[in-house]
Amino acid sequence: MDFAHDARTEELRADLLDFMTSYVEPAEPVFDEQLAAQPDPWAWDTVPVLQELRAEARSRGLWNLFLPGEAGAGLTNLQYAPLAELTGRSHLAPAALNCAAPDTGNMEVLAQFGTEVQKKEWLEPLLDGRIRSSFAMTEPDVASSDATNIATRIERDGDSYVINGRKWWITGAMNPNATILIVMGKTDPDAERHRQQSMILVPRDTPGLEVKRGMEVFGYDDHDHGGHAELAFHDVRVPVANLIGEEGAGFAIAQARLGPGRIHHCMRSIGLAEKAVELMCERVEGRVAFGRPLAEQGVVRDWIAESRVRIEQLRLLVLKTAWLMDTVGNKGAHTEIQAIKIATPATVQWILDKAIQAHGAGGLSQDFPLARAYAGIRTLRFADGPDEVHKNALARAELRRQAARREGPR
Amino acid sequence: MDFAHDARTEELRADLLDFMTSYVEPAEPVFDEQLAAQPDPWAWDTVPVLQELRAEARSRGLWNLFLPGEAGAGLTNLQYAPLAELTGRSHLAPAALNCAAPDTGNMEVLAQFGTEVQKKEWLEPLLDGRIRSSFAMTEPDVASSDATNIATRIERDGDSYVINGRKWWITGAMNPNATILIVMGKTDPDAERHRQQSMILVPRDTPGLEVKRGMEVFGYDDHDHGGHAELAFHDVRVPVANLIGEEGAGFAIAQARLGPGRIHHCMRSIGLAEKAVELMCERVEGRVAFGRPLAEQGVVRDWIAESRVRIEQLRLLVLKTAWLMDTVGNKGAHTEIQAIKIATPATVQWILDKAIQAHGAGGLSQDFPLARAYAGIRTLRFADGPDEVHKNALARAELRRQAARREGPR
Amino acid sequence: MDFAHDARTEELRADLLDFMTSYVEPAEPVFDEQLAAQPDPWAWDTVPVLQELRAEARSRGLWNLFLPGEAGAGLTNLQYAPLAELTGRSHLAPAALNCAAPDTGNMEVLAQFGTEVQKKEWLEPLLDGRIRSSFAMTEPDVASSDATNIATRIERDGDSYVINGRKWWITGAMNPNATILIVMGKTDPDAERHRQQSMILVPRDTPGLEVKRGMEVFGYDDHDHGGHAELAFHDVRVPVANLIGEEGAGFAIAQARLGPGRIHHCMRSIGLAEKAVELMCERVEGRVAFGRPLAEQGVVRDWIAESRVRIEQLRLLVLKTAWLMDTVGNKGAHTEIQAIKIATPATVQWILDKAIQAHGAGGLSQDFPLARAYAGIRTLRFADGPDEVHKNALARAELRRQAARREGPR
Amino acid sequence: MDFAHDARTEELRADLLDFMTSYVEPAEPVFDEQLAAQPDPWAWDTVPVLQELRAEARSRGLWNLFLPGEAGAGLTNLQYAPLAELTGRSHLAPAALNCAAPDTGNMEVLAQFGTEVQKKEWLEPLLDGRIRSSFAMTEPDVASSDATNIATRIERDGDSYVINGRKWWITGAMNPNATILIVMGKTDPDAERHRQQSMILVPRDTPGLEVKRGMEVFGYDDHDHGGHAELAFHDVRVPVANLIGEEGAGFAIAQARLGPGRIHHCMRSIGLAEKAVELMCERVEGRVAFGRPLAEQGVVRDWIAESRVRIEQLRLLVLKTAWLMDTVGNKGAHTEIQAIKIATPATVQWILDKAIQAHGAGGLSQDFPLARAYAGIRTLRFADGPDEVHKNALARAELRRQAARREGPR
Repeated sequence: MDFAHDARTEELRADLLDFMTSYVEPAEPVFDEQLAAQPDPWAWDTVPVLQELRAEARSRGLWNLFLPGEAGAGLTNLQYAPLAELTGRSHLAPAALNCAAPDTGNMEVLAQFGTEVQKKEWLEPLLDGRIRSSFAMTEPDVASSDATNIATRIERDGDSYVINGRKWWITGAMNPNATILIVMGKTDPDAERHRQQSMILVPRDTPGLEVKRGMEVFGYDDHDHGGHAELAFHDVRVPVANLIGEEGAGFAIAQARLGPGRIHHCMRSIGLAEKAVELMCERVEGRVAFGRPLAEQGVVRDWIAESRVRIEQLRLLVLKTAWLMDTVGNKGAHTEIQAIKIATPATVQWILDKAIQAHGAGGLSQDFPLARAYAGIRTLRFADGPDEVHKNALARAELRRQAARREGPR
Repeated sequence: MDFAHDARTEELRADLLDFMTSYVEPAEPVFDEQLAAQPDPWAWDTVPVLQELRAEARSRGLWNLFLPGEAGAGLTNLQYAPLAELTGRSHLAPAALNCAAPDTGNMEVLAQFGTEVQKKEWLEPLLDGRIRSSFAMTEPDVASSDATNIATRIERDGDSYVINGRKWWITGAMNPNATILIVMGKTDPDAERHRQQSMILVPRDTPGLEVKRGMEVFGYDDHDHGGHAELAFHDVRVPVANLIGEEGAGFAIAQARLGPGRIHHCMRSIGLAEKAVELMCERVEGRVAFGRPLAEQGVVRDWIAESRVRIEQLRLLVLKTAWLMDTVGNKGAHTEIQAIKIATPATVQWILDKAIQAHGAGGLSQDFPLARAYAGIRTLRFADGPDEVHKNALARAELRRQAARREGPR
Repeated sequence: MDFAHDARTEELRADLLDFMTSYVEPAEPVFDEQLAAQPDPWAWDTVPVLQELRAEARSRGLWNLFLPGEAGAGLTNLQYAPLAELTGRSHLAPAALNCAAPDTGNMEVLAQFGTEVQKKEWLEPLLDGRIRSSFAMTEPDVASSDATNIATRIERDGDSYVINGRKWWITGAMNPNATILIVMGKTDPDAERHRQQSMILVPRDTPGLEVKRGMEVFGYDDHDHGGHAELAFHDVRVPVANLIGEEGAGFAIAQARLGPGRIHHCMRSIGLAEKAVELMCERVEGRVAFGRPLAEQGVVRDWIAESRVRIEQLRLLVLKTAWLMDTVGNKGAHTEIQAIKIATPATVQWILDKAIQAHGAGGLSQDFPLARAYAGIRTLRFADGPDEVHKNALARAELRRQAARREGPR
Repeated sequence: MDFAHDARTEELRADLLDFMTSYVEPAEPVFDEQLAAQPDPWAWDTVPVLQELRAEARSRGLWNLFLPGEAGAGLTNLQYAPLAELTGRSHLAPAALNCAAPDTGNMEVLAQFGTEVQKKEWLEPLLDGRIRSSFAMTEPDVASSDATNIATRIERDGDSYVINGRKWWITGAMNPNATILIVMGKTDPDAERHRQQSMILVPRDTPGLEVKRGMEVFGYDDHDHGGHAELAFHDVRVPVANLIGEEGAGFAIAQARLGPGRIHHCMRSIGLAEKAVELMCERVEGRVAFGRPLAEQGVVRDWIAESRVRIEQLRLLVLKTAWLMDTVGNKGAHTEIQAIKIATPATVQWILDKAIQAHGAGGLSQDFPLARAYAGIRTLRFADGPDEVHKNALARAELRRQAARREGPR
């Protein structure tokens, strides 16, 4: 057992931290200004300063770090995790490094399950940062954390598949440059539960694909990373060659996509929590009430201590999960992946609430990144299924494990 | 001891509930549409459907219910409290009844401390619902929960007062029809702590008064009730006759204004919590996950039970506080006013969080009123001073009370 | 609506408070010493100082206050509630006033459902304080919060009933002077769910009734109020005249017994919470750490403020419940009775935990009453069914109520 | 970074687990019976079955595992930690392995700071398990988490030191076989804050050392590991050779003693939490209420999931702390040692509360180990200083660290 990062990780962390503080964080107000000045508020990824950040990241070798194997930087999950944490400090960072969801998951799917033609047409420009993508799974009318509830149909008709259904919360899809969508739907509703679903590539400009509106989170439309679209599919027709993997493979591909996605989310959230603690500490030292700096008041100290104690525990569990994914595979790390999915939003939301409180009403406003971060973290308690679903499943697994222990030889 | 409302209250509740369900709640989407269609998004109070609601309310005798004495409906706090609760069900209701903050507090101040001329010029049109008003106390650079920190200056110069300073979170002041502001500032920084401050009436169009921007809460700009302005006062000059009460009376007037304001907020918040429970119950009966309605799942039942148990306790404390204000005065009810200020936002925020969770991601969006309600309630943990200040003061009073008990005869 | 107690209540409260501080609280160490000195540690109710307290209480008219109607003091629930609260300040008080559970509930049952013979033989000496009693319902092998699970059999055999079964947590039954038990069992397991059970009077010295052991709560055996016995019934035979009410009436009698019992428990628990706040305040003023009294430290202030705010809310809900029981009956107050059963132990446990923490390790020891009080309150989260059962039922009622509201005219 | 234990640790864990399940856990009822049968209830360490366990442990090489270096098993903290966790499963285990507090800390002190004579006389029999020891630091009259408050005096008088003062919560000291005490007191109250204190060896039978009484924790006297004594020192005279280290070294020795002590406590507490989860899972599968096993009820599932998620995070932080102690020393691990001191009791107390609730009233009784475990864990929120002191210090360190970050180069 060893709690030190390896040399390559330490080196990349130093490089990335320098890039974050010298380039990315200073670029934030410039990005906001440039985006506000352009005609389409949703076309965020063509903002000039972001393009410059991306060029700089590439030249520094900080590009596609998330992707294992030859197509990417070749890092393990354990090596990538602390880098992903650093990118949580700025909402620009993931895009600057070409490590932003949902593109990352989509690239993983294409790299692992795509045909050569699909890779050529969609993976290459994504790896290159020329286009953006979306992942269309969640539906408005059903509890889609239960994949068997999915109602969107993908039906074979000659050399085409025809897609009908509704999706919402499709992150990034308001952006006209998100030119490709991976859509989850049912090809065979009568098959065995986990063989009913398939995934298919749908170009955003395909006739019949209607972008209805952007969903808001609290009052944020998140246009600066492509929003969250509600989509309708009316007889949307794509060639059969757009299917990813085989018919019925949708559930399995979704599962494979989930593990890394969750761990990235968790690590970035920890980076955000660290930033919140920084802001809270800075604030309370400068603010005096009733004759003493807030930093000397017991309740504030309690918030700071609890924040530190909770972050330290959480980070270690995420890192261990990354290590398990590297050593025993995503399936072997299933319980831990669920555990960090449960623990991370709860912990980080708590910390953000305290950081906001330490800032007074300003903490809820556009003057600090805290309220917006809170909104983002709050969505994680639903993303890929609500907390309650994951807790229920984790408990069932624990009960099974304990029953086996009682019965088996110890 | 008797827990039943009196006959007049019951009658008004029945009338008001009918008005709410027949008129106000159905008008909500109409209001949103009409407001979106007009050129100035901040000029919310001239939207036609709201004018119609106000006419209807007046004709039904549901007008200025908040105001005791002859100028208003003559209700006690205890009679008004359950009516205020009902208005918490819709963001249109307070305005429809001319019972919306900050106008209510401003009307109370003018009725109690204004000169005849001030009443004629400002109170009458406010009571009539022809204009709106703001109350400018909070400042960006200091912890203004401590009134001695207030930095805005009000200086006598001949027949005028000249005002310089900055204010923010001035609710309603983005609305061009909020034609009058009550401004808190210091006339004599060298006086005794609570005699340094004065209040003065400043028409919104006075030269030198700059409306800089609207503050956002989470992503909401709250333009549908006039936003929360940041204001700068650059040598703003008003006649000496605009002073409310005498020089140095500002702190005392602010204290007098607080009690009713807080209790109204608390009652409306309880109405909101009731609505959240309604929405939660409706949602969980219609939604199936993993083979069972959410309404049959233990964790959801726990949320519902806890919500009910917490609301019932909270409401009784608010009602008792109203009763104390009526029987022993605002000063005698000081500890209870503080207690409900502490308890209400915490309780209602908890309930809203669960109601949101029961709605899935939609609960955070524009499709339900929950996320927006959450944002509003969250601000109450700062309004009139953060929770921590009130808890500290309440504990100090308890310690004093206990010391007296130990020493004195029992 | 009126939050003041009536004159009779205020008068009794003053009398009782005087009795508590002049007699009962000073008698506590004497009682402990005298009990320790006598041979049978379980025979607590014959300790001399307690006998003296009882005599004094009788002479002051503070006797059997719990019992409505002519047999008792004729108080309403709302009048008795604040008196019960005061008795929560000392573990001797309920017995000193002849208002201690489980005798109170047993006397209520006998007064309401007993025959004249039963009243003569058992109610009179109980009202007189000459004997003690127990109530035997809970069983070790089943979840007895569900009354249909009860396994003890009461079988008719000629002029006798014959009882077989096991009971535990039978409070008071270790005391040899608890000469009579009310036992709940099944007379007809095939009847409709709530007509299977009956209640019967069983003298403690009946052959076949085995007192197996005293149950401990944490490390306390509670011998100073008769402990909590595990009992076995081996062919225990009593005359048919010992049946209370008719066969099959057991469930209904149990329900009738519950309401007042719960409200008494809740009021006493609030008195205990008040005492904990007193002790906490006294402690933190006298204790200095790192240069400042604990009373000036923010976290301690937070505990005190939260304690006060929670107690005030809780007490009002209990009082309202008492008022409902008086005005619409125990059945009409069902939801509120459940609500206080849920809220009280949670609130008081939280306060005791903080009071203990303020006392340092001593707070857990025999030197203060806090740890023992904590143990007692902790048992209330199970007594008459665990919290989870009550929350589930309360939520189901709320869901039904909301459904009716949605469908019905409002 | 690597989350696997090394080969030696894995081997020892397997051996120890076998010893625990084959010998220690089955011995628990035997020990209780044998202890109850002997005349002195405090003389727990001479109970025959414990002697047998110790012999077996020695023969298996599971002896003095806690002690680094040649005198002990030579394990690092990181190697010992998972073994200490296993010993948390049974209150007999630490003693069976000669790894029980406070002997462990005392042996560490003697091994590190003792003279050859002191080692010969006291360390050897302790390592051998022939005698027991106590550590006397906490005092009743002062907040002794602040070492400068210590009031016990150690005064030089010729060839002796003379000790006067009071101590309480001296674990193990009720046992007549705890023949040696390490006593902390002040040799020079005028020296610099952390040079006032010294430590000295005091044989339990020294004249003037009065064992006044045993302190109880929630009703438990903990006689089965020597209780917690209140001691008075009246002119207790010992030779100068009994001083440990030099005059004024007391504070430094106490600090050195703390690190390992805390980490052992934390690891054992985690073992206890694991046992509680085992018991909870077993219980809820066998218990049916309202038609379904508790194991299928959502609230119970939530408890199990939360327990697992919290334990996993906590254990990793404790292990990392052990690793830091091994790699950068106790001083370098200071913040982490504080963090686990804060996090462990809070987490484990929460889990025990849920495990108790899952057991019904039985969970609070002598029939399960849960209530007693709860009492023990509750004391950890005070041991070596209350949570609030540690949180305050940890926050201060965080504020300093953040200030340095802001100012320094990053």
